[in-house]
Amino acid sequence: MAGGSMTYCIGILVKDGLVMMGDTRTNEGIDHISSFRKLHLFEEPGHHALALATAGSLSVTQSVMTFLNEGLPNSETGKIDTLANQPSMFHAAQLVGRAMREVYRIDGKAMEKNGLNFDANILLGGQIKGGNMHLYSIYAAGHFIEVTPETAYMQIGEHKYGKPILDRSIRHDTPPYEALKSGLLSMDATIRSNLSVGLPIDLAVLPRDAMRFETIDRIEDEDPYFEDLCKQWAKVIQKGRDAIPTPPYGGKATKRLSNVVNLLRPTPPE
Amino acid sequence: MAGGSMTYCIGILVKDGLVMMGDTRTNEGIDHISSFRKLHLFEEPGHHALALATAGSLSVTQSVMTFLNEGLPNSETGKIDTLANQPSMFHAAQLVGRAMREVYRIDGKAMEKNGLNFDANILLGGQIKGGNMHLYSIYAAGHFIEVTPETAYMQIGEHKYGKPILDRSIRHDTPPYEALKSGLLSMDATIRSNLSVGLPIDLAVLPRDAMRFETIDRIEDEDPYFEDLCKQWAKVIQKGRDAIPTPPYGGKATKRLSNVVNLLRPTPPE
Repeated sequence: MAGGSMTYCIGILVKDGLVMMGDTRTNEGIDHISSFRKLHLFEEPGHHALALATAGSLSVTQSVMTFLNEGLPNSETGKIDTLANQPSMFHAAQLVGRAMREVYRIDGKAMEKNGLNFDANILLGGQIKGGNMHLYSIYAAGHFIEVTPETAYMQIGEHKYGKPILDRSIRHDTPPYEALKSGLLSMDATIRSNLSVGLPIDLAVLPRDAMRFETIDRIEDEDPYFEDLCKQWAKVIQKGRDAIPTPPYGGKATKRLSNVVNLLRPTPPE
Repeated sequence: MAGGSMTYCIGILVKDGLVMMGDTRTNEGIDHISSFRKLHLFEEPGHHALALATAGSLSVTQSVMTFLNEGLPNSETGKIDTLANQPSMFHAAQLVGRAMREVYRIDGKAMEKNGLNFDANILLGGQIKGGNMHLYSIYAAGHFIEVTPETAYMQIGEHKYGKPILDRSIRHDTPPYEALKSGLLSMDATIRSNLSVGLPIDLAVLPRDAMRFETIDRIEDEDPYFEDLCKQWAKVIQKGRDAIPTPPYGGKATKRLSNVVNLLRPTPPE
């Protein structure tokens, strides 16, 4: 999967705003690791502010982004649809889906003939004047799902390593910069467990109803806050683990052996 | 993948012994979740003590276990090879691989014709008199890899959620019951993030050179130690997270905007 599994992006939609972040590493070959932008921002202050995070084949997501910038003809209206001129977030998500399908129409079959997966997943979050904030996850087939207050976050790419900390941390009423902190802890867990995800991390914070990104930043190597967060977290885990008593099962095992004696005997499986 | 992704097992080989554990949940259909044994122990005290943890299609792993119990004919020696009569751990791992291939020979093609993955992965750990402790991960094709002191643990099944805590916790000199504790934290993370992995957890501890399991147990619902471990860990994460300062990027973003201004403009992708 060309560049596909080498990404980790998070979108978090809480009561007071949207947080989006993504790593920037892409591996299109075996020993050629480069940094590519996976977080794309579109903003016209006061009118709209949209963030897209991309995962999957770089050739697919780059083509999709080009269509979203340059526009796709709309046969119903006769106009050119770009991400910048959509009337609502729902229309914007549909447009991203249409761009996915258009890239598939052009490249998909040939890619599959060459044994390549047509593989892409895009998070789209933001707000357009007159509408509410939304966060969508759009799939390669162009269909999409929306985040709900019950989950509050979405991940794309290499998402499993960093899911437990998000599950424990993100609620609908989490303040955006606290959500950002938990997102960075999730990034830290992923980077530690998977060499193909790495710094820099791009991030953006969009307060609700601001229609203007409050924070846009890139965390590079040796970023003092991120380095400190990783170190502090390692200590939290170590001290917390040491404070939990050693499992008591050793002593009790013999007594309780009758419950699990079937484990011992080489019986045929159930 | 029938029952395949619904498993999480860990094997840990440290200086002083082996720890093996596995969840017991199997989902062979959509709304039918059952408990099946995934941890299998073979012991002749003083001679050998072996633990197998299985993941993948239940039909495959059950058949493999039957072959390991009932034996496979060895064309070179003319004898019947069972897991109980192997001269070394390396031979035992080879026998598991042979059993995998035998099941594939019988069922594999028909399974694949029906669109089913021939999918199995087995951890084999233990010690046989005259040899050292070993821990192997054996794949569906019958080939295998061995754990090294640098990694010290192996996982099969739904392994990513629970990897970060193991990466942070397990070293070659970790005492076995501390390794067990970290394994349970890894189980907790996985159970929280993936509904298809669940209690009970089977576990076994084998001290080095004992050739006899010291601990064999099953952690059921409402196990006081495990419940307390999960609660304490949730507090560790929450307090640790709260103690880390809020990310400073908000204030600095405007100043540093020139570094990331390309994020803002809807430029064509690199």
